[in-house]
Amino acid sequence: MHPSSWHLNSECFSVDCLSDVFGKSEYPSPLKDSIFQLHEDYKGTMRIPVDLLRKTSLQTEDHSLTFELAGPREKLFWNPTSVVVAIVTCGGLAPGLNNVIQNLVTILCSRYKVEKIYGVPYGYYGFSHDKDTHKFRFSWHRLDTTAVQNIDFEAGSVLGTGRGHSDPQTIVDALTFRGVDLLFTIGGDGTLAGAAEIYEEIKRRQLPIGLIGIPKTIDNDVLWVSKTFGFESAVGKAVEALRCAQAEARSTYNGVGIVKIMGRNSGALAATASMALNGIDFVLIPEVPLVIDGEHGFLNIAINKVLEKGHITIAVAEGAGQDLFPEHKTERDASGNVKLKDIGILLKEKIAQEFVKRGIEYNIKYIDPSYILRAQPTSTEDSVFCAYLSQNAAHAAMAGKTGCMIGYHYGHFTLVPLKTVSLGKKCVDVQQELWGSVLAATGQPSNWK
Amino acid sequence: MHPSSWHLNSECFSVDCLSDVFGKSEYPSPLKDSIFQLHEDYKGTMRIPVDLLRKTSLQTEDHSLTFELAGPREKLFWNPTSVVVAIVTCGGLAPGLNNVIQNLVTILCSRYKVEKIYGVPYGYYGFSHDKDTHKFRFSWHRLDTTAVQNIDFEAGSVLGTGRGHSDPQTIVDALTFRGVDLLFTIGGDGTLAGAAEIYEEIKRRQLPIGLIGIPKTIDNDVLWVSKTFGFESAVGKAVEALRCAQAEARSTYNGVGIVKIMGRNSGALAATASMALNGIDFVLIPEVPLVIDGEHGFLNIAINKVLEKGHITIAVAEGAGQDLFPEHKTERDASGNVKLKDIGILLKEKIAQEFVKRGIEYNIKYIDPSYILRAQPTSTEDSVFCAYLSQNAAHAAMAGKTGCMIGYHYGHFTLVPLKTVSLGKKCVDVQQELWGSVLAATGQPSNWK
Amino acid sequence: MHPSSWHLNSECFSVDCLSDVFGKSEYPSPLKDSIFQLHEDYKGTMRIPVDLLRKTSLQTEDHSLTFELAGPREKLFWNPTSVVVAIVTCGGLAPGLNNVIQNLVTILCSRYKVEKIYGVPYGYYGFSHDKDTHKFRFSWHRLDTTAVQNIDFEAGSVLGTGRGHSDPQTIVDALTFRGVDLLFTIGGDGTLAGAAEIYEEIKRRQLPIGLIGIPKTIDNDVLWVSKTFGFESAVGKAVEALRCAQAEARSTYNGVGIVKIMGRNSGALAATASMALNGIDFVLIPEVPLVIDGEHGFLNIAINKVLEKGHITIAVAEGAGQDLFPEHKTERDASGNVKLKDIGILLKEKIAQEFVKRGIEYNIKYIDPSYILRAQPTSTEDSVFCAYLSQNAAHAAMAGKTGCMIGYHYGHFTLVPLKTVSLGKKCVDVQQELWGSVLAATGQPSNWK
Amino acid sequence: MHPSSWHLNSECFSVDCLSDVFGKSEYPSPLKDSIFQLHEDYKGTMRIPVDLLRKTSLQTEDHSLTFELAGPREKLFWNPTSVVVAIVTCGGLAPGLNNVIQNLVTILCSRYKVEKIYGVPYGYYGFSHDKDTHKFRFSWHRLDTTAVQNIDFEAGSVLGTGRGHSDPQTIVDALTFRGVDLLFTIGGDGTLAGAAEIYEEIKRRQLPIGLIGIPKTIDNDVLWVSKTFGFESAVGKAVEALRCAQAEARSTYNGVGIVKIMGRNSGALAATASMALNGIDFVLIPEVPLVIDGEHGFLNIAINKVLEKGHITIAVAEGAGQDLFPEHKTERDASGNVKLKDIGILLKEKIAQEFVKRGIEYNIKYIDPSYILRAQPTSTEDSVFCAYLSQNAAHAAMAGKTGCMIGYHYGHFTLVPLKTVSLGKKCVDVQQELWGSVLAATGQPSNWK
Repeated sequence: MHPSSWHLNSECFSVDCLSDVFGKSEYPSPLKDSIFQLHEDYKGTMRIPVDLLRKTSLQTEDHSLTFELAGPREKLFWNPTSVVVAIVTCGGLAPGLNNVIQNLVTILCSRYKVEKIYGVPYGYYGFSHDKDTHKFRFSWHRLDTTAVQNIDFEAGSVLGTGRGHSDPQTIVDALTFRGVDLLFTIGGDGTLAGAAEIYEEIKRRQLPIGLIGIPKTIDNDVLWVSKTFGFESAVGKAVEALRCAQAEARSTYNGVGIVKIMGRNSGALAATASMALNGIDFVLIPEVPLVIDGEHGFLNIAINKVLEKGHITIAVAEGAGQDLFPEHKTERDASGNVKLKDIGILLKEKIAQEFVKRGIEYNIKYIDPSYILRAQPTSTEDSVFCAYLSQNAAHAAMAGKTGCMIGYHYGHFTLVPLKTVSLGKKCVDVQQELWGSVLAATGQPSNWK
Repeated sequence: MHPSSWHLNSECFSVDCLSDVFGKSEYPSPLKDSIFQLHEDYKGTMRIPVDLLRKTSLQTEDHSLTFELAGPREKLFWNPTSVVVAIVTCGGLAPGLNNVIQNLVTILCSRYKVEKIYGVPYGYYGFSHDKDTHKFRFSWHRLDTTAVQNIDFEAGSVLGTGRGHSDPQTIVDALTFRGVDLLFTIGGDGTLAGAAEIYEEIKRRQLPIGLIGIPKTIDNDVLWVSKTFGFESAVGKAVEALRCAQAEARSTYNGVGIVKIMGRNSGALAATASMALNGIDFVLIPEVPLVIDGEHGFLNIAINKVLEKGHITIAVAEGAGQDLFPEHKTERDASGNVKLKDIGILLKEKIAQEFVKRGIEYNIKYIDPSYILRAQPTSTEDSVFCAYLSQNAAHAAMAGKTGCMIGYHYGHFTLVPLKTVSLGKKCVDVQQELWGSVLAATGQPSNWK
Repeated sequence: MHPSSWHLNSECFSVDCLSDVFGKSEYPSPLKDSIFQLHEDYKGTMRIPVDLLRKTSLQTEDHSLTFELAGPREKLFWNPTSVVVAIVTCGGLAPGLNNVIQNLVTILCSRYKVEKIYGVPYGYYGFSHDKDTHKFRFSWHRLDTTAVQNIDFEAGSVLGTGRGHSDPQTIVDALTFRGVDLLFTIGGDGTLAGAAEIYEEIKRRQLPIGLIGIPKTIDNDVLWVSKTFGFESAVGKAVEALRCAQAEARSTYNGVGIVKIMGRNSGALAATASMALNGIDFVLIPEVPLVIDGEHGFLNIAINKVLEKGHITIAVAEGAGQDLFPEHKTERDASGNVKLKDIGILLKEKIAQEFVKRGIEYNIKYIDPSYILRAQPTSTEDSVFCAYLSQNAAHAAMAGKTGCMIGYHYGHFTLVPLKTVSLGKKCVDVQQELWGSVLAATGQPSNWK
Repeated sequence: MHPSSWHLNSECFSVDCLSDVFGKSEYPSPLKDSIFQLHEDYKGTMRIPVDLLRKTSLQTEDHSLTFELAGPREKLFWNPTSVVVAIVTCGGLAPGLNNVIQNLVTILCSRYKVEKIYGVPYGYYGFSHDKDTHKFRFSWHRLDTTAVQNIDFEAGSVLGTGRGHSDPQTIVDALTFRGVDLLFTIGGDGTLAGAAEIYEEIKRRQLPIGLIGIPKTIDNDVLWVSKTFGFESAVGKAVEALRCAQAEARSTYNGVGIVKIMGRNSGALAATASMALNGIDFVLIPEVPLVIDGEHGFLNIAINKVLEKGHITIAVAEGAGQDLFPEHKTERDASGNVKLKDIGILLKEKIAQEFVKRGIEYNIKYIDPSYILRAQPTSTEDSVFCAYLSQNAAHAAMAGKTGCMIGYHYGHFTLVPLKTVSLGKKCVDVQQELWGSVLAATGQPSNWK
């Protein structure tokens, strides 16, 4: 579904600010030294277009939609010395969770001089409490610069994370009991959709509580952000697995190396990783229907390439080819995600059968790196990206912005209303540069038929 | 100097095509399968704005300037089976030189079916030849997919590189003798300026020779490209050196760790690397004048921070504080670059003197990683970036584009006329996001005075 | 089975030399410069004891058995300028195959000035040929220093490898047809057993052909060598996978991380890797029988530890607990190895069932890094080790030594007759230091009961 | 100086035990489960020979000297619940300091159930205190398993380290004031010599205080240990720097890459690192006198190799060629070490002058990675090694052993009296395997003349 079909209007991109309802932002930012340094453009008046590309003849209608640029503001809504902050990390692991926690705490404590920051354990679970006694199931952490000093070396989340969906009422109750003024939720599209509901509940109760989301997922499938944190680090590890499969394939007679790469709905991770190596032969993603049999099907073309080149390496996104499983019933896991069938094993079996049928010797090696892609520290690029995200989240929050997440669009950090984020998931657009480049790099056909 | 002061007009961004002079592009692209896949927008009609940011009230004049989007074209100017290609790498090493060579050769040979590709040795030196005998000083390499198979594992350039400036006449003579139709020059701003001169000579002689530049430098100081290849990989290594200095500083009493980071005119590398770690205290770059002495000078503030925090870590770009050297005479090296004085050693000495003067024990460790930052293989992100760059260079070249380099702007690959590239060098804009974020992360003052 | 039960005698450790049968070694070594440098002890007269440890009262019988020390010899059996060498890599991949090939070729060509070296493709398969036409199924490679320049960057084997068992007659025929004087076989215990048979065939035919083995396996299960090449590099990657599992476990409520680590008969890889991290809770290896159920069984102790500590991480060798599978019939793969059942998945299921039975929430993550452990370039320590091994193999071969492999024993390189290598496989001795240290590090019980 | 010249006798290798003086070890080890598992040989009765190699005719006199094997003992001298432990890290950084701290604390707390462990800050400085008030200059840390959980990710020492020499009286006073029963000192040869003095003072006062040393240095120059922790990790980083220099050299015309590698008295680090790469041309170490000029001097041979091969790479230990500096006066730094002149820069200048003299173009790149080699986390092999060392240190200490360090000899961990350690420094023995292999790998002459 192309964004244009959503009948988006400028309201969709308009960010709420607590000062609109609860009185103006009046505290001068302690960051004024670095802010005064900034060009006027970065002081909150600038916007960047949602849709950048333009035909030679300018179409104005494409350009009416813009994002508010993120960045520090000169006046704060919150009084740093009294504001109470909470941070929660939700969903599966991604490289960078600890970097974001570390950077948030550092900028809030060291620059804004915030004094009270809670770390909520195990995701939205951490808000669970007894309604009568107000006793919480898990103790909350207290975070300061000492507590986060070297956590960026560690993979995972020092707060703990979880997939569960607490209801918005419980969460907002918990925020109230604990006196939390500002909540940062770090997570993927499920988490952000949850955050949108929490925000609705906050608004319904007319509470002066700010809520800022930070998009996290190695799948890079969040709308309105060109990359999520964790993605580039995961690409690095996917490339390592692909190199292994390629080494196995090259080192044996008629070698076939297959790597299954995370990505339920989006093949972005598999496609991007395959661009980092020379000589990946096939990239299979959910966005391109997979046809196995027939002259123009995957199997025939793949085996012909083995015979021609001596070996092949295949990157397959875990969500690819799910319709190929004969008795495909929709099973779901605890968190409601559809349980995927193992496309990697299916490919391995099909390829083996075809070699046997043709009476040809072969060697297949299948690698499923699974959590290795995500339970990692960040690459340096991702570390830098996490630092920018966290700073902008802190700036937005302290200025009173709420109900939005930090986006990244055409190289700039933006503020994106949560309601607009939960409109859908981002996929690989097979008509754009990434997929076009994968086709050019691999030489595989644009369609299986 | 801000681009706006250059009186740029749309002509500056207009890319030459050999078909404008030498007859139309008539060969169908063998990549049509992936091209047909692409959205109309990517087929050559789209442009992206030079200046993206816009105030809430649209200022149309900001938007009249646009770049042509790079990408594959449906018709080729060159006949792949007869075109003769040469690739040359110039200047200092950068991570990714071999990736670019590998990707160029792969896309040209495997997709476009180009049959003859030369690798020119040792940069522009490789064009040296005897005018009478036409004997070349160095043998040229022949490149094909086998020759480049695993070169991305190696640092450096398999072709060899060099800093020397051959005159454009000699180079164009050499191209003619060897029958070269298409030249790819890979290098930094000096190389690209040289390429602009070569292109002028080609035009003067009215030769049907295409010339495409690919910007390379770990300094990230090329105009009109938001990042150059090699930069992100170098950031990774600079971060490693900073971590070492930080470990040394933290592990001793009143510890001071100093790392000198490449960057003659631009502090982009030092500034970006310092964003990847928690707890860098000072970042010194050429763009911000350095004052050492006085109450608000660097020395006093730095030593106070040691006393307060127990240790500090300093990232200093090699070009910072050059005016601090007493007998600063402009010496130049063989390639005409000003020989820089060692600001790292100066800082080390000044800090030590100040501690001694104040009668305080201290430990200073100075690290100069020098070529370690650049004589490296690429990070995976950089590998992906090199793949995109190379593909777009091949697409542009085969379509007959010439006299331009591949740019990267707001997340899109563009075509930028070489004459516009050589207008200047990109620096860190202290009014923009990178420097603002560094100030927020370090807490250092925005100016020394 | 302890070596002492094999009734080993000094004959078992006596190395054959071609000069004993075919006339004396008369060519002076071109390495004389470095040899003259060496202490007398290293010139072939020294031996090191097979069993080093001694009680306070010396037991002479322990010390009658010694290995011949490897190293360069002053006289060569082979004339370097005419000797014909072949190198073959067999079995599964291990980090270091290319390092060994590279170092062998370098020392033979650059130092001994050998002129003709073949690389045999795809392991023992590469000897297949038509008995009448002498036509080989695969072309052999020619190797020189240029061909091997950067192959140490690559994982796998540039020659290709294979598991197949050609019969010794065919292989010796092939050596004769090709005029091979010296064969280096690089492989694990199966390969070395095959080499022992080839050597018997060579002796039976009274051919002056030298044969030297180099032990390779990430399992570290070859007799008489304290480590094989590839092992340390694989440890490094196993540690990475364990860190991932630990991060997953720590970041969730009642988290359990499980990593399956290669090792069919020996848990050396799993045990050693678990020593590199802080906080591995359980290490399960084939050498220690696994009891799942009961009060002192694994399941009860593991779940109690989750409840006490909050999370656990388990390293399980693939060969552990194979008797736990209900319908355990001995299936074998093409190369005769018993097909192992997936103990990792069994553990995952059993643990999950137990949590469910006890009504406790939990999070289990299972990682099977599989070929990622072995399809890697070497760690630097392993690179150094490969260099030593290869030099010593070349020295032994040129001196006329034959029918032996290069061993590593108490920190010295030795010559070990192949017939003695194939007496069995090395396992983790649960009465020695490695396993004792694992028990101390994990705190797990020494036996499951 | 060869050990044999020291007139060593068995007394030199006899380890003191507190139970010899202060009453017998009577506390049963809580590690009995893993100890009972061990073979009798590991329970304290076994010794390993100091000199292993033997000629074919056994020379008994070589074998009278043996080390006591390290390992857990069944009875403890110290009552774990009341013993007070202190850990101090001294001297320069080495990879593994934090691993050793972490492993010591883990085994002491989690297995031996020790309850009180101090971390002494900034090396022997941390014992400084006012003799009257008993007030310490720096607060001591309290260490437990939580405090050390992830410190192995960090380089450096979390305790801080320092080079200063406090006098033994002050240190033993401090131990007494704080009630310390057991001191672990982690450091290089200076630290261990200091520890020997502290031990003498403890004995002089007849105090029941145990003292165990753990040898640390990236130089690998401690007597009686085949490797120190930190060494292998530093080798890894030295190899990275050599690869950079090699890439620079290969990528330019007549390229010369020089890397200076730490090692004041021993070239072990430079020599070992150079074995990990293919194609290092020269390794210069303090143990081999360097002659620069003349036909057989370094300069002539090096430049001839550039002309023959096209480029060269040189590894030079920092202590090499110190006699080449014209006005070589012995300056010393604060800790009494002789200030070395920069041999790398001398080589660079000499080579450049020679090229200029001969009228040949050239490119020289000099890399001094300095602290990058040591301010690193450990390699996995080093992590494993640190775990073994720490366990054995804890075992020895709890059993009442004292005045000794943990050695590593022929693949086994040993107990070595401190007085014997401080007899001298280990160098590269140019008559043994390492240097012989370097000569064979590089092809450089065994002597410069």
